[in-house]
Amino acid sequence: MIAICPGSFDPVTVGHMDIITRAAGIFDKVYVAVLHNPKKHPAFTEEERVNMLRTATAEMSNVEVETWDGLLIDYAAHKGAGVIVKGLRAVSDYEYEFQMALANRSLRPEIETVFLTTSSENMFLSSSVVKQIASFGGDISAFVPAELRDVIKERLMQQRSEMQNGKH
Amino acid sequence: MIAICPGSFDPVTVGHMDIITRAAGIFDKVYVAVLHNPKKHPAFTEEERVNMLRTATAEMSNVEVETWDGLLIDYAAHKGAGVIVKGLRAVSDYEYEFQMALANRSLRPEIETVFLTTSSENMFLSSSVVKQIASFGGDISAFVPAELRDVIKERLMQQRSEMQNGKH
Amino acid sequence: MIAICPGSFDPVTVGHMDIITRAAGIFDKVYVAVLHNPKKHPAFTEEERVNMLRTATAEMSNVEVETWDGLLIDYAAHKGAGVIVKGLRAVSDYEYEFQMALANRSLRPEIETVFLTTSSENMFLSSSVVKQIASFGGDISAFVPAELRDVIKERLMQQRSEMQNGKH
Amino acid sequence: MIAICPGSFDPVTVGHMDIITRAAGIFDKVYVAVLHNPKKHPAFTEEERVNMLRTATAEMSNVEVETWDGLLIDYAAHKGAGVIVKGLRAVSDYEYEFQMALANRSLRPEIETVFLTTSSENMFLSSSVVKQIASFGGDISAFVPAELRDVIKERLMQQRSEMQNGKH
Amino acid sequence: MIAICPGSFDPVTVGHMDIITRAAGIFDKVYVAVLHNPKKHPAFTEEERVNMLRTATAEMSNVEVETWDGLLIDYAAHKGAGVIVKGLRAVSDYEYEFQMALANRSLRPEIETVFLTTSSENMFLSSSVVKQIASFGGDISAFVPAELRDVIKERLMQQRSEMQNGKH
Amino acid sequence: MIAICPGSFDPVTVGHMDIITRAAGIFDKVYVAVLHNPKKHPAFTEEERVNMLRTATAEMSNVEVETWDGLLIDYAAHKGAGVIVKGLRAVSDYEYEFQMALANRSLRPEIETVFLTTSSENMFLSSSVVKQIASFGGDISAFVPAELRDVIKERLMQQRSEMQNGKH
Repeated sequence: MIAICPGSFDPVTVGHMDIITRAAGIFDKVYVAVLHNPKKHPAFTEEERVNMLRTATAEMSNVEVETWDGLLIDYAAHKGAGVIVKGLRAVSDYEYEFQMALANRSLRPEIETVFLTTSSENMFLSSSVVKQIASFGGDISAFVPAELRDVIKERLMQQRSEMQNGKH
Repeated sequence: MIAICPGSFDPVTVGHMDIITRAAGIFDKVYVAVLHNPKKHPAFTEEERVNMLRTATAEMSNVEVETWDGLLIDYAAHKGAGVIVKGLRAVSDYEYEFQMALANRSLRPEIETVFLTTSSENMFLSSSVVKQIASFGGDISAFVPAELRDVIKERLMQQRSEMQNGKH
Repeated sequence: MIAICPGSFDPVTVGHMDIITRAAGIFDKVYVAVLHNPKKHPAFTEEERVNMLRTATAEMSNVEVETWDGLLIDYAAHKGAGVIVKGLRAVSDYEYEFQMALANRSLRPEIETVFLTTSSENMFLSSSVVKQIASFGGDISAFVPAELRDVIKERLMQQRSEMQNGKH
Repeated sequence: MIAICPGSFDPVTVGHMDIITRAAGIFDKVYVAVLHNPKKHPAFTEEERVNMLRTATAEMSNVEVETWDGLLIDYAAHKGAGVIVKGLRAVSDYEYEFQMALANRSLRPEIETVFLTTSSENMFLSSSVVKQIASFGGDISAFVPAELRDVIKERLMQQRSEMQNGKH
Repeated sequence: MIAICPGSFDPVTVGHMDIITRAAGIFDKVYVAVLHNPKKHPAFTEEERVNMLRTATAEMSNVEVETWDGLLIDYAAHKGAGVIVKGLRAVSDYEYEFQMALANRSLRPEIETVFLTTSSENMFLSSSVVKQIASFGGDISAFVPAELRDVIKERLMQQRSEMQNGKH
Repeated sequence: MIAICPGSFDPVTVGHMDIITRAAGIFDKVYVAVLHNPKKHPAFTEEERVNMLRTATAEMSNVEVETWDGLLIDYAAHKGAGVIVKGLRAVSDYEYEFQMALANRSLRPEIETVFLTTSSENMFLSSSVVKQIASFGGDISAFVPAELRDVIKERLMQQRSEMQNGKH
């Protein structure tokens, strides 16, 4: 069974890695899909996000990282996937994901959405929290994969000083 | 009893039509109010949205469509309405609507907010989902009223190609 | 339009009266239905609950109180009602009521369930809270209709002393 | 990958069958586990529930039905399963299931809990709703598998008349 | 400022100890109140629960353990407490606690209810989960204070064998 | 015990004052922190918001108002505070605050986040609701502190006419 792990990954967190690792343990093949969102202004470029994910999943032989500029459900069909995997943290996550899962099923009933629960120590963790802490100079070491720590910090610090300069 | 069905209707979905139809079955007269939201940048102009709604409600003799650039509760008072009708899908909807209902009651206690549950097959459906699917070229036929299908598709496709051209 | 206000009313609270009063303001005729629940052991007999409600609604000319030992939706059909009215307090209320509303619509699509929001000062109020406070000798005066205060207090105090005697 | 679909199935609903069918489409082998719950007084005996499930899953070659009187997570380990599959309807479901999933992971981290969303037309459906409707003589035909309709109706009607006789 | 930590503590979990410890760090004096609930049939006697808590809080110089057979808010007033401290895990907890906090404020506005968030590793943990796992012979070592492990296990195993004997 | 009451206060509402007043009754010293949010475009300048809060808290001898352009948790450490106080209204509030509380604890475990429940009459009230009502010319008198009524109204009316002029 082929599975898709979609997301923005802006940036990758240890919570993302937890879900990808567990999906790779359940399914034969996992495609991590960096989705293009025309409305959002990401902190990291698509290329940076793909590279971060490739570094962080280098040891996982059944995981591949790709980008997709279209409907997630079409990507899943294109790869021959039977399931889309999503990690859940809080109830508000669940509601939104629930709606998207029902919408996707109405488009392609043969592809299932399955949910995994985030491990409890990552429950508060999101890319937004990481960016928020970094934007004030806080330490994000515990929240991102060890091998990406420096590149993520450097990039977010740079953005922070640009924003502060723009402010004055 | 006169009722108000307020919304952005950007664009109209079969979920909206479900709520309007049922409100028209319960109350003597229903005003569908296209509200002006200064913060949002709608995909369809106010005029387009009014026209879509008029087309879709043409057969309902006790329904009228209007726009209002002000507080919803003042519009309700202006039309002599006793109730505001809102459709509920998920819990997060409910929380926001609950707060607005309490705020409206503190302003005008004589006007009630009543909630109808969206029918289960429309539970995932929102104008945002329709726009998101259309923005990637997905098929929205099942999500919008049949008589508006072509006009909605054309408009969203046009926006999509504008956005893509802007991107390159 | 005929409406049904169903419940256990064990006992009647000012929160119940708030919903009944507002339903009576919106709809032409309101039947308050004291439902028989074979699983629950009520603190007040069906007759006592009907009498309490009749006392509390004596001034409302378009309200009648009845009991029903069957499916709520069949009662609504039997009375020619087009709507069932439910008051909502919290999110957990909403979820249960949402499921019941969908179940009822699948049985009789022509009868709508409409929800009213409890006024904010009654948001914490339920028959269970009243019974819990009374069971420890707390003052429930603010939580039940003034004209029922004495009969409700007396009854719950009596139960309390029975329970305490049974305990020793 | 071996999966477990646990539940009380008291009685089996079309919602249960939806989840079992989809789990059987995703995983190589599915064990449907009728769990013993010492606290609940089921309407159907364990044997009846197993027989209902065997009838309803007769056509699914990779599904087996068993009972288990112990911890679910121990059953999963005993069968060599890597995943436990749960269907989600509402937010309140999710909260409880989330807690159980975290508890199970703390006991056996190698077994994952995955969630599937109930299809929207079954969202209000539960064994309790079926029993409640049947207990008042309502029609449950649309809520249970066609081949089990008669046996479930007969059993619940019998209980109903016993309860009514006990009442008088 | 004097604070009350109320609960059933049936049995004490590491989640309870986390909240008590943190309350003792914030407030001058903490009374842990083992509340009598006439409706529930506890697994441990009131005396056993008080003894467990006294053992587990022996090192905390500003914590005392007592029982109370009455309204929590009256106990708080009786001890001269200004705050009631409750630990929150999930959203469903929050809703119930929110209602009780509003009810208590309506009875005694001078006493505040403050909420602490359970630490993330205890988020799934409750006395019910502990009893459920123990009732099937699962290992509860990680869920209860180390010094109470043996006494809790022994008691719950004993109950389990009684229940099994009663079954046959 | 020193406590922090953080927020945007854009503008101050009677709901904010309720939480600040109650925090000042529980803790020895309360710092009200006007946080800088680089992403939001506030309606009131930082200086205006500090002045509003100083006016509204003038009578509270243990309350001080300050601004902070950094991580809240660093501000708390800087002031020697042991607790951060947050008011909760709805479930969606709670989810976000819960995540932030867990994130803050992972950064500095020695600082606790405590939650107070908003009094029921302020449950729908937020700075956004105030601004939304004002932007349509509605009366916000009941929602903001009496002594700030005029300055808040004047400012929001001015913004409203600027927005309307920009529109034409």
